[in-house]
Amino acid sequence: MMNVPLLVSSMLERAEKYFPKKTVISRTSTGIVTHTYKEIGERTRRLSSALQKLGVQKGERVGTLAWNHHRHLEAYFAIPGIGAVLHTINIRLALAHVVYIINHSEDKVLLIDEDILPLIEAVKDKLPAVQAFVIMTDKEELPETTLEPVYHYEKLLEEGNPDFEFEKDLDENDPVGMCYTSATTGNPKGVVYSHRGMVLHSMALGLADNAGLSESDIAMPVVPMFHVNAWGLPFAATWFGTTQVMPGPYFTPKVLAELIESQRVTTTAGVPTIWLGLLNELEQGNYDTSSVNRILCGGSAAPKGMIKAFETKYKIPFIHAYGMTETTPLVSVSRLKSYQQDLSTEEQLEIRSKQGGLVPGVEMKVVGKDGEVSWDGKEMGELLLRGNWIADEYYRDERTNDAFRDGWLHTGDVVTVDEEGNIKIVDRTKDLIKSGGEWISSVDIENALMAHEGVFEAAVVAVPHERWQERPVACVVLKDAAKDNLQKEDLYEFLKPQFAKWWLPDDIVFLDEIPKTSVGKFLKMALREKLKEHLTEIK
Amino acid sequence: MMNVPLLVSSMLERAEKYFPKKTVISRTSTGIVTHTYKEIGERTRRLSSALQKLGVQKGERVGTLAWNHHRHLEAYFAIPGIGAVLHTINIRLALAHVVYIINHSEDKVLLIDEDILPLIEAVKDKLPAVQAFVIMTDKEELPETTLEPVYHYEKLLEEGNPDFEFEKDLDENDPVGMCYTSATTGNPKGVVYSHRGMVLHSMALGLADNAGLSESDIAMPVVPMFHVNAWGLPFAATWFGTTQVMPGPYFTPKVLAELIESQRVTTTAGVPTIWLGLLNELEQGNYDTSSVNRILCGGSAAPKGMIKAFETKYKIPFIHAYGMTETTPLVSVSRLKSYQQDLSTEEQLEIRSKQGGLVPGVEMKVVGKDGEVSWDGKEMGELLLRGNWIADEYYRDERTNDAFRDGWLHTGDVVTVDEEGNIKIVDRTKDLIKSGGEWISSVDIENALMAHEGVFEAAVVAVPHERWQERPVACVVLKDAAKDNLQKEDLYEFLKPQFAKWWLPDDIVFLDEIPKTSVGKFLKMALREKLKEHLTEIK
Repeated sequence: MMNVPLLVSSMLERAEKYFPKKTVISRTSTGIVTHTYKEIGERTRRLSSALQKLGVQKGERVGTLAWNHHRHLEAYFAIPGIGAVLHTINIRLALAHVVYIINHSEDKVLLIDEDILPLIEAVKDKLPAVQAFVIMTDKEELPETTLEPVYHYEKLLEEGNPDFEFEKDLDENDPVGMCYTSATTGNPKGVVYSHRGMVLHSMALGLADNAGLSESDIAMPVVPMFHVNAWGLPFAATWFGTTQVMPGPYFTPKVLAELIESQRVTTTAGVPTIWLGLLNELEQGNYDTSSVNRILCGGSAAPKGMIKAFETKYKIPFIHAYGMTETTPLVSVSRLKSYQQDLSTEEQLEIRSKQGGLVPGVEMKVVGKDGEVSWDGKEMGELLLRGNWIADEYYRDERTNDAFRDGWLHTGDVVTVDEEGNIKIVDRTKDLIKSGGEWISSVDIENALMAHEGVFEAAVVAVPHERWQERPVACVVLKDAAKDNLQKEDLYEFLKPQFAKWWLPDDIVFLDEIPKTSVGKFLKMALREKLKEHLTEIK
Repeated sequence: MMNVPLLVSSMLERAEKYFPKKTVISRTSTGIVTHTYKEIGERTRRLSSALQKLGVQKGERVGTLAWNHHRHLEAYFAIPGIGAVLHTINIRLALAHVVYIINHSEDKVLLIDEDILPLIEAVKDKLPAVQAFVIMTDKEELPETTLEPVYHYEKLLEEGNPDFEFEKDLDENDPVGMCYTSATTGNPKGVVYSHRGMVLHSMALGLADNAGLSESDIAMPVVPMFHVNAWGLPFAATWFGTTQVMPGPYFTPKVLAELIESQRVTTTAGVPTIWLGLLNELEQGNYDTSSVNRILCGGSAAPKGMIKAFETKYKIPFIHAYGMTETTPLVSVSRLKSYQQDLSTEEQLEIRSKQGGLVPGVEMKVVGKDGEVSWDGKEMGELLLRGNWIADEYYRDERTNDAFRDGWLHTGDVVTVDEEGNIKIVDRTKDLIKSGGEWISSVDIENALMAHEGVFEAAVVAVPHERWQERPVACVVLKDAAKDNLQKEDLYEFLKPQFAKWWLPDDIVFLDEIPKTSVGKFLKMALREKLKEHLTEIK
């Protein structure tokens, strides 16, 4: 057999050749613009040549600080297209962390959305490695800026070569991209993606039993392109000739609902908080969502109540998936097996709200206190992963040794595995509540609370306890309609039939909002800090 | 990223772990038997250990002479599972060719279906490299045979190790299998498949826009497992936990129709002659085919009339695909693009009867008389292919240099490419009719003839002509119902509006049957030989 390197550039080339008329629809700061793949291909080639002229060499990093739009998509292919590394920077990180990762990755050029300029201007003197700033803007002229040397993205393209040939003299294991992920303490940790991993991951996204991404789809990645490459969807969608809808900067649930209706979106992907917001919007407005045939949800566990609401009220199938920055990210997809179609709706929902079965190409081990756990849906252990799109290190980081050992990624996620091989995340190793020598899953209690119709969000954290070491305390945000009539006691009554007595939280605290990380996950560390004296105080 | 070798054994391991209850249903010579993937996995491991005990070493070849059934599936994984090479032998080849390929590949062990024994017994003294014959039979005792040393497949399994660990110390580029393909002249040519190629090809089979193979499918590969690994379906189906229905030895259209009905088959795959036969059977019998949601057809061009009949009469979507032994085989799939859904039924059929667009992972060049052809649906050129599941040589064969040059496989297929990138095979380079310096596609005329309701089969060949060098002559097999009332003139009237005058065959000859190759393709060489004096004689 031939051995042809698996390279990301071949994906865009396929779109240019076979789907030149298909389109990428972008919401930018000034409106909605549409480009064909033919145009995207040509613009990407121009960008590749421009980056080369700016001095970017094979293997060097180019950073992007940008929302989901066509220019960011062009960067996704133009940077690897010269053998350089696409470094997507999470603009929601603390500024000190943004500075850290730009310096740590030694970005040579930064591509920056106009509205993100102030962020970089504030720290421009702390970025010695950056040799050029390229501003992505719809305006004809460059905005006023203190950055230098500074270039206008569209002007660079004008001067670029539309027939630029992508670099093919690469090893498929060469880096294609980077993404830094927040650490519990200390600086973010860099994950490096390879061409090989990205191509194989894209294939996995197209498998009928996974995302089943198709030419006939109109896909809207809501998950940011600065977060695990929008779950790899822009790569796969381009490869398959899928129409892409990019929701752009500062979108609201209303913007998403309107894009779904106007663009006839068939599939969209994001974290649960996005879908909670959308659900809220759909309940208030009057939108046509009939084109949507599946929502992909990952990043953190989707509450059962939310899955049920989308499926019963809006007839939108909900696909629950699991992954992380270190895993490109697709690890598992929760689907019923063919012989489970006759189960009751509740039983099906129970299965489908788990993180599901491993996709082809990824292997796991689940290691508990006494070695690998049995597949009984009860025994808890840490999830270990292996595969061609699983990272094997943090970029130039000593913390590599904590997470990558013996050829496996130690995810830090505590899971159970049921008889069918479905994993269910019961906690993060660090969030697990250790009460009197037993383990309590904070996630299980959260999901139960969020299944209550009056609850908008709930987070359960471990709070220090004299006798039991740790005890759970629940933080609950009520829906507006429930704020005046739902009491703590009602929630206890709701929880009691579902859990052993010693699992019930020692207190339920009502909050206006659960603090969240830059990617929408509950920031439990902040809650733990806030509540660390709570049990002593209420005693 | 990690770099984990892509190995075929991981596919079976996934089925064992995640789909232990899913089944493989086999029609054997004595009835229908069902095995779970748990059982298949254990039996495969037993076979691996037994082959090792018989002395098979890493890299050595093990030949199979067998129909589509569970034991053959076990061999598919057990042989690569010890790092050896699965050599599937086409039992329909001429006996001399069977002897040639067993010797040429140096098969160390042969696994033989009981009913195929006489074939091997007849040549046993000519196979010096074979050190053991293993008989696959449902009977408890070995049949009488002159082969030796000879082993009973099931007894070997009984003594085998159910916990055998598959060999993992392999390079993903190592050989996984071999299949010999008939040559126009001379001995068959050996194609060697790699683990890498087979895993990537299996992923391609699962893509939503290709075969979309899924856990929920009940798949019946009718294409023989001795022909290009039944198009790789047994590998992919196992990986995805798909239920497999194996039609076994000497099946008839009636057997296939009954299996479809009784097993609720959702998808099946084979060459056009199989579907012509099934269509005939469905027209005569009364079968429930409502479970079938797609038929995969490849191997040679599917007549438009057949596609239409399946889709309109039986509501079974028909997917036309293209490939060859050298390409593992999936190269292209004919699907409408999303913006073509509004075309008329006839226009859609016109597109869908082409060989279609290249699947992700394969690249092409189409080279005509003056370099690469334009994508106008008219200019003809030879199809050149490249990709990770495209062969790069014939095994120890000088003819490698004819087909593999400059990093491309020269397929010998003459195609046009339309504006959408769909290829359409108009001929084999060697079957193309060169009339007065112009090219006539024999395939186009055949398809037109086969679209006539009275025509069962048609083959058009080049016959030597004094003035024009070559002229087309059509060989036609009529349906029984048409035999008494359809005349040559009727067919000419039918063809005339469809072709330029000089494309019309110089004669139409009625035959009882079109001679075919071992895999059901028209044997045009035999027709050309038969008709070589024809035009001189009828003058």
